Amino acid sequence: MSEQLSIADARQAEAIGRQVVLQGWVRTRRDSKAGFSFLELNDGSCFGNIQVIASADLENYEQEIKKLSAGCSVSVVGLVKESPGKGQTTEIEATAVTVHGLADTETYPLQKKRHSFEFLRTIAHLRPRTNTFGAIARVRNCICNSIHQFFQEDGFLYIHTPVITTSDCEGAGEMFQVTTLELDKVPKTEAKVDFTQDFFDRPAYLTVSGQLEAEIFACGLGKVYTFGPTFRAENSNTARHLAEFWMVEPEMAFYDLEDNMRVAERMLKRIFRDVLEKCPEDMEFFNLRIDKTVIETLEKIIDADFVRLPYTEAVDILTASGEKFEFPVDWGTDLQSEHERYLTEKHFQCPVILYDYPRQIKPFYMRVNDDGHTVRAMDVLVPKVGEIIGGSQREERLDVLQQRMKEQNLEPEGYWWYLDLRRYGTVPHSGFGLGLERVLQFVTGMANIRDVIPFPRTPGTAEF
Amino acid sequence: MSEQLSIADARQAEAIGRQVVLQGWVRTRRDSKAGFSFLELNDGSCFGNIQVIASADLENYEQEIKKLSAGCSVSVVGLVKESPGKGQTTEIEATAVTVHGLADTETYPLQKKRHSFEFLRTIAHLRPRTNTFGAIARVRNCICNSIHQFFQEDGFLYIHTPVITTSDCEGAGEMFQVTTLELDKVPKTEAKVDFTQDFFDRPAYLTVSGQLEAEIFACGLGKVYTFGPTFRAENSNTARHLAEFWMVEPEMAFYDLEDNMRVAERMLKRIFRDVLEKCPEDMEFFNLRIDKTVIETLEKIIDADFVRLPYTEAVDILTASGEKFEFPVDWGTDLQSEHERYLTEKHFQCPVILYDYPRQIKPFYMRVNDDGHTVRAMDVLVPKVGEIIGGSQREERLDVLQQRMKEQNLEPEGYWWYLDLRRYGTVPHSGFGLGLERVLQFVTGMANIRDVIPFPRTPGTAEF
Repeated sequence: MSEQLSIADARQAEAIGRQVVLQGWVRTRRDSKAGFSFLELNDGSCFGNIQVIASADLENYEQEIKKLSAGCSVSVVGLVKESPGKGQTTEIEATAVTVHGLADTETYPLQKKRHSFEFLRTIAHLRPRTNTFGAIARVRNCICNSIHQFFQEDGFLYIHTPVITTSDCEGAGEMFQVTTLELDKVPKTEAKVDFTQDFFDRPAYLTVSGQLEAEIFACGLGKVYTFGPTFRAENSNTARHLAEFWMVEPEMAFYDLEDNMRVAERMLKRIFRDVLEKCPEDMEFFNLRIDKTVIETLEKIIDADFVRLPYTEAVDILTASGEKFEFPVDWGTDLQSEHERYLTEKHFQCPVILYDYPRQIKPFYMRVNDDGHTVRAMDVLVPKVGEIIGGSQREERLDVLQQRMKEQNLEPEGYWWYLDLRRYGTVPHSGFGLGLERVLQFVTGMANIRDVIPFPRTPGTAEF
Repeated sequence: MSEQLSIADARQAEAIGRQVVLQGWVRTRRDSKAGFSFLELNDGSCFGNIQVIASADLENYEQEIKKLSAGCSVSVVGLVKESPGKGQTTEIEATAVTVHGLADTETYPLQKKRHSFEFLRTIAHLRPRTNTFGAIARVRNCICNSIHQFFQEDGFLYIHTPVITTSDCEGAGEMFQVTTLELDKVPKTEAKVDFTQDFFDRPAYLTVSGQLEAEIFACGLGKVYTFGPTFRAENSNTARHLAEFWMVEPEMAFYDLEDNMRVAERMLKRIFRDVLEKCPEDMEFFNLRIDKTVIETLEKIIDADFVRLPYTEAVDILTASGEKFEFPVDWGTDLQSEHERYLTEKHFQCPVILYDYPRQIKPFYMRVNDDGHTVRAMDVLVPKVGEIIGGSQREERLDVLQQRMKEQNLEPEGYWWYLDLRRYGTVPHSGFGLGLERVLQFVTGMANIRDVIPFPRTPGTAEF
């Protein structure tokens, strides 16, 4: 009997001589005058195809096999042989080809020619069948797995923080509202929406971050991380913004900012190393077709120590650089992308962890330094992308935290439980957030963030 | 220098003789007349505590150590020694105890006495610090990790299907609406809501299932799984319903219903085996305090073959059983929980996979059998919980699928891309859904689903 094999396995030398069943989708068909056809078959298990040799002797050769075109689905039974061809180790000599589904060449939207990414977004249900989007799916899977393994091996607990929330982590942030009220007849009492008739008896939103809830678990169970979807209702139509994206947020009790930096650096290096090791074919494709620097960039980062630089020194470096920036550099304002890129690409030529930012530009939960002017914030900057991680040591002192909330006009009532964490058994703790899609953009070189998530949600777009 | 160690590691015999730093929260303090105090310390790394012996010679003994109570946070430096006490391998002789945060015994809500789970839900920010909820967090983490490993080892790709959606997988289902319109002044044109002013230019909802999108990826990349939050806006105040819960949905190209059953059975056994192996202390606790049958039940399932039983035969068995059921058994209606429990608990005394359900009670996407009356649906039933997995082979034939949609009054326009999967290179494929919280209830014996998710969302409740 023939054994079921993935094409990834069938392409290895070890498969030679085995009688197998392969199942997948035809990429191309080429007919030889010598009385057989070559099918390039892909099943998603790897970037490369396997070549199937289908002889004219097969009973359905004329009626079916010769009609196969890009997108058709087949099962192939046959013998794996050493391939005489270049760039492939094996090929399969078919003894049977079963056709499951055809794909009419007149109407099938994926033609042989190269399609623009813009066009492919309109057929997001078919784009996983292309080389580029198959590769993105595998690299995305690899990175997710790498993240989980990194934390699991280090004793972190994976926790699920809620998507539906009634609190707002950043104190600002544009949020989506979640409701079961009928929008064409919203109930009101005294001209105000009557939320007692809504599902949760109060206004509810989609979370912008699981950090505050992750702190709950860290402040009782030590080391935890979240990995889930987060949301921004910003009307940003850029290549770097999504309304729905995935975020990883580790949070560690008894970790200070230096510990936090070490976790962030180790995690990024682990991700990059895994991608290069486990997806070499996919990465070669990105390096060849999308951005000729991606592999070299990742390799350099894996070997380099990240620079640690206080914000204040960064401002000094930028001021003294003689560089012409569009935006002025001024202590007390956020750095712009051009400044971040100057630091990582020109000045240091490696990732930089900026820390100790001005108090007034950072959220209330970041720990205030003894100088009173700065807080224990950190941003990890990488070449080309800029900020890829943002984090901080959290303010664990109840009185200082309350003072900071007052400064930022936050109502303590909504944060009673967050304050309780400081009231009972408070501990120094730290954490950060990593946007999965930003990492994917960095790793693959893909210019538009809409192309590294299966089904992008952006203003006006929620198809599929 | 002392090395940082988790309490899980410090409790092992290998730690004896090492100079360590432990950090965590005090569970209890007991003072000996012999001039020292015993602290039970927990850091979340495992169920058990470590006993810290703090001598009166320590400089902060009177001022600080003797004030320690449940919930206080400390760092302890000391030597790990063999413990003369029963039920513990090691203990630590402190050379320094640093107090990070006290927890006023007058106001700290977690007192020594046992609290009801209802009460603990009102302090969900503190309940991870209890034995029960620490154990749940570790078992939940273990199960999530087990699920990822199971699929990763088998070549599945983890994919993220969207939370915000404009389609409704089940064709029915009560959904939450997602909007950026201001509810107190919803814009209207001709008495209808003007969705062109909403974020996505149309009504958008929270997903009830990622299945249809998972099918997209399976029908191009082979074997995939989703693992993410899903939502139901049902007004169900039961111990088994949540408005927000996590679901795992594998989807496999070229898999028929029998293949699907095999994946489901293997996955459940893998989860149960991992939990028993990796969380033995936590499971002993559940077995002792929550449900005295959980360990035995899991062990039996791991060793048993799941029974496969067509729905029609199940109806025959139930009808012939002589059992008095509250609801009548009738071919063509859904089985009730009492029927499912009779089959798994009394008749077979093991998990049962029911399959080939009546066409009229199942969704449009399930493959129609040759008999015309049944579809290739399957439900995995386990003792006590009943249905834990629901799945099916999907209808891959375009014409049959279109006919089924017509039967169920579904508009094909909304499903153009789903139909395209059958139009171009269609393949037999199958998948199922597993509710994470149901599994957790089954594994731990916890009666209420609100206690196995960090922050439950239910009608009227979205605190934290």
